[in-house]
Amino acid sequence: MLENLDLNRTLSKKEYKEVTEKLSPRLAELQRTCKELGIPIMIIFEGWGASGKGTMINQLIRPLDPRGFQVFTIQKPNEEESMRPFLWRFFTKTPAKGRIHLFDRSWYQRILDEGMRQGMDKEKRMAAYEEIHSFEELLTADGMVIIKFFLHISKEEQHKRLKKLEKAKETAWRVTAQDWHRNKEYDKYLHASDEMIIYTDREEAPWTVIEATDREYASAKILNCVVNRLEQAVKKVQGDRAYEEEKKRLAKEAAARTAEEKADRDQERQKISEQFRTGVLAGVDLSKSLTKEEYKKKLKKLQERLRELHSEMYLKRVPVVLAFEGWDAGGKGGAIKRITENIDPRGYEVVPTASPNDIEKAHHYLWRFWNKMPKAGHMAIFDRTWYGRVMVERIEGFCTTEEWQRAYSEINSMEAHLASAGTIVLKFWMHIDKDEQERRFKERQETPEKQWKITDEDWRNRAKWDEYEVAVDEMLVRTSTDYAPWIIVEANSKYYARVKVLETVVNALEKRLKNS
Amino acid sequence: MLENLDLNRTLSKKEYKEVTEKLSPRLAELQRTCKELGIPIMIIFEGWGASGKGTMINQLIRPLDPRGFQVFTIQKPNEEESMRPFLWRFFTKTPAKGRIHLFDRSWYQRILDEGMRQGMDKEKRMAAYEEIHSFEELLTADGMVIIKFFLHISKEEQHKRLKKLEKAKETAWRVTAQDWHRNKEYDKYLHASDEMIIYTDREEAPWTVIEATDREYASAKILNCVVNRLEQAVKKVQGDRAYEEEKKRLAKEAAARTAEEKADRDQERQKISEQFRTGVLAGVDLSKSLTKEEYKKKLKKLQERLRELHSEMYLKRVPVVLAFEGWDAGGKGGAIKRITENIDPRGYEVVPTASPNDIEKAHHYLWRFWNKMPKAGHMAIFDRTWYGRVMVERIEGFCTTEEWQRAYSEINSMEAHLASAGTIVLKFWMHIDKDEQERRFKERQETPEKQWKITDEDWRNRAKWDEYEVAVDEMLVRTSTDYAPWIIVEANSKYYARVKVLETVVNALEKRLKNS
Repeated sequence: MLENLDLNRTLSKKEYKEVTEKLSPRLAELQRTCKELGIPIMIIFEGWGASGKGTMINQLIRPLDPRGFQVFTIQKPNEEESMRPFLWRFFTKTPAKGRIHLFDRSWYQRILDEGMRQGMDKEKRMAAYEEIHSFEELLTADGMVIIKFFLHISKEEQHKRLKKLEKAKETAWRVTAQDWHRNKEYDKYLHASDEMIIYTDREEAPWTVIEATDREYASAKILNCVVNRLEQAVKKVQGDRAYEEEKKRLAKEAAARTAEEKADRDQERQKISEQFRTGVLAGVDLSKSLTKEEYKKKLKKLQERLRELHSEMYLKRVPVVLAFEGWDAGGKGGAIKRITENIDPRGYEVVPTASPNDIEKAHHYLWRFWNKMPKAGHMAIFDRTWYGRVMVERIEGFCTTEEWQRAYSEINSMEAHLASAGTIVLKFWMHIDKDEQERRFKERQETPEKQWKITDEDWRNRAKWDEYEVAVDEMLVRTSTDYAPWIIVEANSKYYARVKVLETVVNALEKRLKNS
Repeated sequence: MLENLDLNRTLSKKEYKEVTEKLSPRLAELQRTCKELGIPIMIIFEGWGASGKGTMINQLIRPLDPRGFQVFTIQKPNEEESMRPFLWRFFTKTPAKGRIHLFDRSWYQRILDEGMRQGMDKEKRMAAYEEIHSFEELLTADGMVIIKFFLHISKEEQHKRLKKLEKAKETAWRVTAQDWHRNKEYDKYLHASDEMIIYTDREEAPWTVIEATDREYASAKILNCVVNRLEQAVKKVQGDRAYEEEKKRLAKEAAARTAEEKADRDQERQKISEQFRTGVLAGVDLSKSLTKEEYKKKLKKLQERLRELHSEMYLKRVPVVLAFEGWDAGGKGGAIKRITENIDPRGYEVVPTASPNDIEKAHHYLWRFWNKMPKAGHMAIFDRTWYGRVMVERIEGFCTTEEWQRAYSEINSMEAHLASAGTIVLKFWMHIDKDEQERRFKERQETPEKQWKITDEDWRNRAKWDEYEVAVDEMLVRTSTDYAPWIIVEANSKYYARVKVLETVVNALEKRLKNS
């Protein structure tokens, strides 16, 4: 319905002054409140060329404390960026809690620019809308405020502005052939924008169309919209906190009243539920093993083959993600070492995952992993991964039940996005039994050069073996996909395990390279 | 990961008895609680042929009060059903608040059966998953509990069961060539099921895979899962209610403290925001008119053409939805009459929309409209529509702010689904100005045979003209799509308006029939 909007709306200088004098201090105050409450904010500007996106951003940031915001100009992906999955550069630019990031162009660029140029068909566009939906949903579910503006001017107005820019020496360079092409094909682009706005207009991340002929009108409307959205967000967070407090109070009261009786019943129910959980670990045959001779022979062959494939993969620009999870002392390190020790160190990175630091905690939990996703032709090997969300964070209560339950489909979406960008994704679960773990722990304690590998935390985790088993089983069942399968590695025999990992990687690379 | 599950899990008779004796009375109690709290529940059973879906449903309903549930067996769409959009038969079967509907097969049939038979490609499947996601999301957002089971047996087990069924006279008819085909192609179907489960496993409507080799085990696991999910739902609703109470209390306290100051500020902010709302109504040229002679001539021609097109549309099985909204006395009735008076009454239905009755109120607000969606070849003309959600319900506070804000994308999804099923969807906004409305109201009051048309409510609505204008503007902007456009009809002149409506319908039908 863009074509039906009244683009002649204006504001007099006086009206403009009145509005901004009222709203600007309010915006500054809201920025402070959002910082206190830890609300992250993304404000994106899309719209016609020469519709004034830059000017609007400059107006909007005037009342803001410069230490709290950052402006990003999104152009065609640069070489570095185009070697990563499309959403990578946006995910890595999401603001930390309490900060504001403004975007001149955004993830919608793909549809408006690339999509139009390459004539993306309807089904491809729908798939792109769905990816955007997942991306925005995942952020807003985590508390992000997303404000989306589309700056709208008429074909004639755009024509006039482009002419004017071209005329003046200092701005002529800003007008490209592309701009004129789009002005000529205005109706086609209008139509595409209309569809995009409808399909990506969601309650949690709605579009606001700005009638941008008159700069005062446009600027004031944007200011007003941002103030309204931030006020809503603040109200919601304050409401949610009050609710949480209240819930805790009620829970405490209820617990005090019927603590024992309830605990008994819950325990009984828990016990029944345990009988029925879906699992794959119980059926794993841990007796599989290899002799040292077999191991040595196979290892050598596989490592040589992997070196060849790794170069080929580099030349053909295939990105690879290897994710390692498993029981403590399950042999992750050993397996990773056997992968890397023979290949070119410029072509891979091993990413160890510790507890998140403060900066990482201030972002979405997937943010730090997105930052490490490999470029085309590179291999990223994760020693522990984003699956921490549904294992340690679940079990230790570092996130809420809603959060880890939501994580399965969030992770599946992320991996689907990687795969659709051509990435090979393999996930290894290094599986040993409880006795084997004990043997290895003790061995580590008794061997001086291995003592650093064993900590009190390992013993504490071991005490929660059964809880972990529940979580791991659910994880394996709910996140093993065609495009990013889990490989359960029978790892009581280190030889067997290492060979299986190498074989899996070699086979996956061979299969892909044969088809490319 | 279906292939990795341990399908040999069993429960002894004694264990089974213990579990069911504990959980059955609990399920009965939960059914009563859900009824009291008005929680609607859908439980669906998918899975292999001969995996025991029927038996499982029979076991599950045993403890239930038969007045509160209903079982639906979903087969290939019958003739009636295949003439409607795919989701129609499921939408019309959603339970009212407090009731339980169980489904032997479901909306997933399309992917598992039709999709496999017709070799749906990946992008088509993704689109189907997205439709399912919208459907389930819309229901769960409205409070529906959706429990999804997939009954899983091995190829060998299925083979054994089919043989056994075939051997006994009284069950032999149940085994079809299709069943044997699927057993033969087991791996292909396994793979399809795996993908489907991953892509449609969402926090709000998760899948539970049931290892169904042992009937006792399967039946008890289902019972346990249903009890758990209902307990969670009850806890959530009770929690939400406590929260609402608490919010009201806090709001009341806060209001009492700073009522006047806050009201002043809110009013001021409201005034500023009004300047910036995006609208299309203000720009409509209401001076357009037609003379009586022009009108008569055009009307005759258009009605004749429409009659022809209506027959053709019937023969070519094109379904048509015409939705009429507009100001009171805007001329909806007159326009509808001019459409229908010359066409075959067996081929259309006029659906007047009053306030929802009790049964309608107990369902999702779109339910009553889904029930009236036309069959292929038929035309449904709605006199007022589902847009009541974002007009009268919004303004009178009949639904919450979250609910009407969510409605835009829900409505867009529904109309996209209709359109993708081949339906022509046209939406007319009959637009007059305030003076014209007053003239018409007075005329009605003064003309005895028109007095029934005017009520006190009409005058009350008129007093809220400005509020309606805000809502209508937002509605027109956010829900006008290519596949279901809004047509703003300049209706100060009744002649002009009727001709524009007829012309629009005729043009849309001609365009479609030319292309079909």
